[in-house]
Amino acid sequence: MTRKVYDLCGADDLRFSPNCWRIRLALAHKGLETEFAPWNFTDKEAIAFSGSTTVPVLVDGEETIVGSWNIACYLEDSYPDTPSYFGGEAGRAVTGFINAWTDSTLHPALVRCIVTDVHERLDPVDQDYFRETREARFGKTLEEMRDARAEFIEALEPALKPLQTILHYEAWISGDAPAYADYLVFGAFQWARLVSPVELLKKDSPISGWRERMLDLFDGLARTQPAAG
Amino acid sequence: MTRKVYDLCGADDLRFSPNCWRIRLALAHKGLETEFAPWNFTDKEAIAFSGSTTVPVLVDGEETIVGSWNIACYLEDSYPDTPSYFGGEAGRAVTGFINAWTDSTLHPALVRCIVTDVHERLDPVDQDYFRETREARFGKTLEEMRDARAEFIEALEPALKPLQTILHYEAWISGDAPAYADYLVFGAFQWARLVSPVELLKKDSPISGWRERMLDLFDGLARTQPAAG
Repeated sequence: MTRKVYDLCGADDLRFSPNCWRIRLALAHKGLETEFAPWNFTDKEAIAFSGSTTVPVLVDGEETIVGSWNIACYLEDSYPDTPSYFGGEAGRAVTGFINAWTDSTLHPALVRCIVTDVHERLDPVDQDYFRETREARFGKTLEEMRDARAEFIEALEPALKPLQTILHYEAWISGDAPAYADYLVFGAFQWARLVSPVELLKKDSPISGWRERMLDLFDGLARTQPAAG
Repeated sequence: MTRKVYDLCGADDLRFSPNCWRIRLALAHKGLETEFAPWNFTDKEAIAFSGSTTVPVLVDGEETIVGSWNIACYLEDSYPDTPSYFGGEAGRAVTGFINAWTDSTLHPALVRCIVTDVHERLDPVDQDYFRETREARFGKTLEEMRDARAEFIEALEPALKPLQTILHYEAWISGDAPAYADYLVFGAFQWARLVSPVELLKKDSPISGWRERMLDLFDGLARTQPAAG
């Protein structure tokens, strides 16, 4: 197989990266078999060839593409005979908005709730790097972050509002069938599911049912990694 | 003309409603000539026939549709030979997400900055109703809201982030050409422009250029109402 994604990896081969999960599901959507090679946060050398310091990095034959959005657009354009991610150019642009919302609103609201759990599940070789960069970002120790978790979960509610609103009347973010908007948002919930035993959603949230449907896709692809217990 | 929208109206025939502006631009997009009839907040009787207590309400021949999203979907389905708002079903669903984001994130962040200006520009017949309902909603007097404005404008920044991100690389929210996602988000900025002399955007924000392009659409339709001075 000439197709390969460098995929963030924790201890015990845990593949928890939200942005890599976007691409794993997106490749399944197009039926494109791909090797997901384990990569550590601190192994910058292994992907230096790509010009990027973070993953996902896709190598597809002669092509190297970095960043989940670029990869999604590349796959959409390069494999026009496979099922579409966007259903056309207007759909691609508005999906780009959801991508930006996920990066700027959903992930920051979510990571505060689970950052200490992420640290615990990292390969030991990455733990010092992670602690240092994240404590600098939040201005708090990882232990202080965990102590404030209830408050962070409370603050997640308003951030989730648009998602709750549409999943109240649509089965999928993309409408009648799942597509890239679903994969990219699901990456965030898969990340939380894999690293943290804490439930972030209220019992009656319409997001819960959608998350189960997402876990069922592609013969339960996203369930191949068990939830944190 | 048998097509009519009940349109919120301030003093001096000021048409400032963000949700009505969505529909005004959306009707122009499809070239559907429509009467915009002035309506006051407190004139619940005039639209009681529709079952709604708020506008926009569209009456199109025998049909009555309430709420901007329902109206947009109705127009898209009823006039299939006119230019599309969504570019297909997937585009409609993800535009629904932007609709939910605008209602749950953008409008609440924006209204705090301009609510006192809105009050000043209302028809006197609506001012008591508006003051009472909004002071109850915010738990502050309108004067206290104005005093806190600098802080609210500061807090607008993170809410605007997804919009800033995509307008950095796209001319329109909908991609190569404006469509319903643009109209619905623009409604919020048109609302602010019409009632408040305060500039809410940073000088170098990519949202500013897009707002100018939106104002130019349909022979400057949105400029027919002058900015608050």
